[in-house]
Amino acid sequence: MMTSNHHETHLKSSDFITDVVIGMSDGLTVPFALAAGLSGAVSSNSIIITAGIAEIVAGCIAMGLGGYLAGKTEQEHYESELQREYDEVAHVPEKEKQEVKDIFATYGISESGQELLANELARDKDKWVDFMMKFELGLEKPNANRARNSALTIGTAYFIGGLLPLSAYFFTNTPTNGLLVSALFTTICLFVFGYFKSKITGQRPIAGALKVTLIGLLAAAAAFGIAKLVA
Amino acid sequence: MMTSNHHETHLKSSDFITDVVIGMSDGLTVPFALAAGLSGAVSSNSIIITAGIAEIVAGCIAMGLGGYLAGKTEQEHYESELQREYDEVAHVPEKEKQEVKDIFATYGISESGQELLANELARDKDKWVDFMMKFELGLEKPNANRARNSALTIGTAYFIGGLLPLSAYFFTNTPTNGLLVSALFTTICLFVFGYFKSKITGQRPIAGALKVTLIGLLAAAAAFGIAKLVA
Repeated sequence: MMTSNHHETHLKSSDFITDVVIGMSDGLTVPFALAAGLSGAVSSNSIIITAGIAEIVAGCIAMGLGGYLAGKTEQEHYESELQREYDEVAHVPEKEKQEVKDIFATYGISESGQELLANELARDKDKWVDFMMKFELGLEKPNANRARNSALTIGTAYFIGGLLPLSAYFFTNTPTNGLLVSALFTTICLFVFGYFKSKITGQRPIAGALKVTLIGLLAAAAAFGIAKLVA
Repeated sequence: MMTSNHHETHLKSSDFITDVVIGMSDGLTVPFALAAGLSGAVSSNSIIITAGIAEIVAGCIAMGLGGYLAGKTEQEHYESELQREYDEVAHVPEKEKQEVKDIFATYGISESGQELLANELARDKDKWVDFMMKFELGLEKPNANRARNSALTIGTAYFIGGLLPLSAYFFTNTPTNGLLVSALFTTICLFVFGYFKSKITGQRPIAGALKVTLIGLLAAAAAFGIAKLVA
């Protein structure tokens, strides 16, 4: 029962969900705040829409390709460390055995226990390397499609998240009306998003929803104030 | 020698550096691309500056507070799992011993080795729980100030990264000139940033610098094209 709880937590916060949350968090907040900021500084919706769409496209590409690069880097890092562990196991096995023993020593395992474990691990090079990757370096084998999937998911989530607040300016005729509708609509979206995000990550949903909504509104209010000052 | 290499890698990619990279990656790219997009669609620098500053403030708060929430969530998650492991060790010790054995069974450790390890671990509850946190759940104790530091570092890096490309519009008198200076200046900044980022994360510096620069320029070109279409 308890073990299955652990397992559930791990399943829930999958790579896909994590990426949706990353993209949607910024997507719902930044274009909304930018549009809100411009609403206090310009007189026509069309500039807000142009700027909003430019921002969404820029953010989408920057975050999507950023996610792609991060995924690739993670994979290359894993592979180069894997190669290094294979080299070490082949060329300095006694040193690697000592590393195994050191790991177990920190957990209070006796000298003879350390010795036994190091020798048993050393019987199978692949498993030994797996062990070192996970327990010495804390690295898990990344999913091969992670980088590409990450890019698409983060980018799409940012795009959708950004269009929601901006859409209010399509259907209104002044920045002030646009801002009112956008703020109302985005507050609801932020709350709903924050609620599910918190549920998924195991936080208290209402408290989490309030936090996410507050950040969005704070960002928008700050952008509005600064843009009014600058313009 | 080889072990000290591992260690170096870990030291280098510290939380601080990671946060600077997160903030600076988006900060150098998104405000630059937004300004570039607007340059093709509006006729005065002042709107670009207003929109750029609104974006930087919005992004700064969204990313900074987002980093704060993420850090807090990580810490709460760690603490709730820690509590759960202490409960399990106290109330279902045999089940926990079986989990220890299962972990080592996957690495080809013999039944008697598993038994020895599980029994030795069980002598010290704190170390046993530490072991389960790291090796069953893959969780490391987060730094207590991580959330606050993360927020400040990411926010500041985004702010500085965003002001660099935008500054070109302060010193020029038309969007076209602003865009030219900004693109030139930002290309250099992206390259330098990509170079050091790659060095720090152990990638090939020149290849990494080119990738980072390309993403920034792609985002700007896409924003420029779309903004021209929409306006």
